[in-house]
Amino acid sequence: MVSAPIARPDEKARLRLWVRLLRLSRSIEGELRERLKTRFATTLPRFDVMAALWRAPEGMLMSELSRFLLVSNGNVTGIVDRLVADGLVARATRAGDRRTSVVRLTAAGRDAFTAMAEAHGQWIDELLGGIAPADAEAVAETLAMFRSSWEDGA
Amino acid sequence: MVSAPIARPDEKARLRLWVRLLRLSRSIEGELRERLKTRFATTLPRFDVMAALWRAPEGMLMSELSRFLLVSNGNVTGIVDRLVADGLVARATRAGDRRTSVVRLTAAGRDAFTAMAEAHGQWIDELLGGIAPADAEAVAETLAMFRSSWEDGA
Repeated sequence: MVSAPIARPDEKARLRLWVRLLRLSRSIEGELRERLKTRFATTLPRFDVMAALWRAPEGMLMSELSRFLLVSNGNVTGIVDRLVADGLVARATRAGDRRTSVVRLTAAGRDAFTAMAEAHGQWIDELLGGIAPADAEAVAETLAMFRSSWEDGA
Repeated sequence: MVSAPIARPDEKARLRLWVRLLRLSRSIEGELRERLKTRFATTLPRFDVMAALWRAPEGMLMSELSRFLLVSNGNVTGIVDRLVADGLVARATRAGDRRTSVVRLTAAGRDAFTAMAEAHGQWIDELLGGIAPADAEAVAETLAMFRSSWEDGA
């Protein structure tokens, strides 16, 4: 959010990239929030939790889920509780380990998520429409380069 | 946060880019939050407000500030109130318009921000260290392409 008052020339390119990235992701997130609310009466954190669970049909531990979402366990717990109350997520035990409780999408949850993900894909395609698919690939490659120690395998 | 269950091939590159962008910005934001807290006992929203005001020595209207930060006026008000209480931000009237109240950094606020921005620049340089400066420039260019109607001149 800032062009630093003091920055070595080398720093500048990365700082400029960061400012762009942050503004871009915030503005798209804001737009997605609005659309998820209007069209599906849901929130971005709910969508994110369902998206993570959609990728894990076997279910996820709560700790895996919060690590994947890069948010605290406490935040995820409230969201999962409401998804459970809505019948979209269920708690279950993992095959071969009756003591460990995982959460996973219910059939209704998978249906609901499929509809949201389809709209979400179209929205992103529209919102990032100014970027040619080839450029999008190239940028995604570059961003993949810097998977660092402080990042949990994005 | 999702590889959509249904996506046209064209959509896929943009969706993949979005997932990368989002994970990247969230993980860097998380790291910055931690470091701002540890090193400066401050928060990312406070830093963002000070950064915006640092760029506007004449001061900003509250509405300009929230539009620039892409957050709601209500959120910004609480942050500004605390910065004012801490002596880092002051309310003032704009030259030639005594009725319109703007907020701006105080001298103490500018000093505090200069120290934070210097550290912030170094952190970003380190956290994005896996991206060569030339690649960072190229990606920033590509991302700049898609300033769209729904985005307020990022």
